[in-house]
Amino acid sequence: MNDFSFCTPTRYVFGHDAEKQAGELMLATGARRVLIVYGMGSVIRSGLLDHVKEILHSAGIVTFELGGVQPNPTDPKVYEGIEIVRREEIDGLLAVGGGSAIDTAKAIACGALYEGDFWDFYCGKKVVDKALPLGVVLTIPAAGSEGSGNSVITRLEGLHKLSLRTDTALRPKFACLNPELTFTLPPYQTACGITDMMVHILERYFSPTPDVEVTDRLAEGLLMAIMTEAPKVMAEPENYEARANILWSGTLAHNGICGTGRSEDWASHFMEHELSAVYDVTHGAGLAVITPAWMTFMAEHRPAKVAQLARRVFGISNTDDREAALEGIAALKKFFSSLGLPLTLRELGINTPDYRLLVDKLHENKGEFVGGYYRLSRKETEEIYRLAE
Amino acid sequence: MNDFSFCTPTRYVFGHDAEKQAGELMLATGARRVLIVYGMGSVIRSGLLDHVKEILHSAGIVTFELGGVQPNPTDPKVYEGIEIVRREEIDGLLAVGGGSAIDTAKAIACGALYEGDFWDFYCGKKVVDKALPLGVVLTIPAAGSEGSGNSVITRLEGLHKLSLRTDTALRPKFACLNPELTFTLPPYQTACGITDMMVHILERYFSPTPDVEVTDRLAEGLLMAIMTEAPKVMAEPENYEARANILWSGTLAHNGICGTGRSEDWASHFMEHELSAVYDVTHGAGLAVITPAWMTFMAEHRPAKVAQLARRVFGISNTDDREAALEGIAALKKFFSSLGLPLTLRELGINTPDYRLLVDKLHENKGEFVGGYYRLSRKETEEIYRLAE
Repeated sequence: MNDFSFCTPTRYVFGHDAEKQAGELMLATGARRVLIVYGMGSVIRSGLLDHVKEILHSAGIVTFELGGVQPNPTDPKVYEGIEIVRREEIDGLLAVGGGSAIDTAKAIACGALYEGDFWDFYCGKKVVDKALPLGVVLTIPAAGSEGSGNSVITRLEGLHKLSLRTDTALRPKFACLNPELTFTLPPYQTACGITDMMVHILERYFSPTPDVEVTDRLAEGLLMAIMTEAPKVMAEPENYEARANILWSGTLAHNGICGTGRSEDWASHFMEHELSAVYDVTHGAGLAVITPAWMTFMAEHRPAKVAQLARRVFGISNTDDREAALEGIAALKKFFSSLGLPLTLRELGINTPDYRLLVDKLHENKGEFVGGYYRLSRKETEEIYRLAE
Repeated sequence: MNDFSFCTPTRYVFGHDAEKQAGELMLATGARRVLIVYGMGSVIRSGLLDHVKEILHSAGIVTFELGGVQPNPTDPKVYEGIEIVRREEIDGLLAVGGGSAIDTAKAIACGALYEGDFWDFYCGKKVVDKALPLGVVLTIPAAGSEGSGNSVITRLEGLHKLSLRTDTALRPKFACLNPELTFTLPPYQTACGITDMMVHILERYFSPTPDVEVTDRLAEGLLMAIMTEAPKVMAEPENYEARANILWSGTLAHNGICGTGRSEDWASHFMEHELSAVYDVTHGAGLAVITPAWMTFMAEHRPAKVAQLARRVFGISNTDDREAALEGIAALKKFFSSLGLPLTLRELGINTPDYRLLVDKLHENKGEFVGGYYRLSRKETEEIYRLAE
């Protein structure tokens, strides 16, 4: 096990009417003038935005709004938010939505207190040492950003999709997690969210660090729980208990607990980030394509951990690591397929992938080698993209 | 799943030389005059106390000491600590040791800022709303107090052993977790610690709350990890990796993550608290006796969750719940026995248990009914004590 320092100070308020505590929780952060950040309008149509505004107003908080954050959020919205924060002397942010709204709010939270360009944090030129307090009312269980200190933003110029990781600076102060707010999430988005959280766990599971039985078992347990609950939410979108289990899994998948004491992989995420930056596909759908391709490569080159997953999570009994790994991958693909997700680039709508562009951008953003479990060269990342064809 | 509000702000610093960060971490809490609380002298003999004092002094912190905290810690030491804190204008505490030192430090941390008797918090007359900042350098993985907001103290007058639970008020600000500091823990203490952490998980696992697949799987995963690593630490006390996995399990077993969204049981702990208060047995050893007895009672009266544990953790394939439960209990007892632990009151050295006294004190402290999974009457708790004979 590796040495680590780990702290998750986010308060998770979970359950019925959780969002009603947002006013009181926001006040406790010291914020009095709050920018509400949200996405493409579903929170307006559902009435949630008005509801949350009323809750904040009842607590004596003055609210401002920044809507229109797109999936795979981009930098212009961040600059727009920073300008509003400075102009209106805003002292706190509340993201109402999913990962895109939260990640945009995080970028604004640190960018508004920094004299330079917020992008400096994302390309590694500066370390975040302060940020405005941020709260979350979650509507999409997927990205896990409500419990993480991370944020992913795409810079339109050059389509660079970069992730920023902080220890605690960008962890939300609180996250209101009401399973009922996820009832109306369409099946495809639900399935993409489930895939995203599963891959957040797998990126940590596929670790080169030996002797990590505790986090291996936590990861395997979460994956099994998700795979038990997923068919229920797909069949019954208003099944509160199943939605609750999926929601909580999504937070635990990415708040760091499964990664304590181990190096992580993240090659699948980085490879998917290039896909979604170039082709604007939904992140979870892209992962359903890329991750099994990555695992298939590993079955040939470093099967041990894929085989352990196959045996412990998918009940594969084959004693040959390569064969067990391949059987496990087949089971995982079958599961993704049962959720209605694509399994190939073609099914994702990318008929003539520009492999050269994807590989160039990937290694331009991430360096000569990619991945922690196995360091992939350009030749190898291209091979994985092609395995996904 | 039940609604919940959950926050674990403790910073866990884990690994080689973790204690070296105690000075800097203590300074970050604002403390400058720190009371070091420790136990019966092993930290003096090992040199750890002097080492920690040097670390704090190098950070410019003035230190004071309160040693001699006994296992099953009692109130006189708390009053002594509160007096020192007030007299010396101490503004922070550092517990160096295991659960007894930490729980005593927690009682002092809240008691010193309260005008009345600290015991008011333990018997439920007052709620803790403020406490001095507390840090931990852990030497015994067992109680999990380094990551919890709880504390257990025995009042000598009447031998009342009561537990205080807080949301975040008594959670340590930081915990330094260095597996090497646990190398010298004797086999019996190691085994008792392993049992304690396993039962912390089981108390949460045995829940009347339905639809808690996520926390069920987390609990099962942690139990499996502990049972994989335990034989290694028993055979090789200086196996860093195995000690590390056990240490981290002990914290996660009790920081609340396995209890999110569910009612818990705690009957085994309450019943054991009376045993250790009256007969001064080691808590973990008492649990190795009481918990299987409690489970045996449940196999007859409410076997479902015991059977699930038996199947998922011990690989029992019996489809009859009662039979599966009994087979699982036999496997658990075999595991405890392999650690060298007693399985009966007699093996624990209690040849003529005063059942009447135990039951009277249990229900006097905890009310007419005990336990969340199954509410036990006096008649039933006596039956369980007798099952442990």
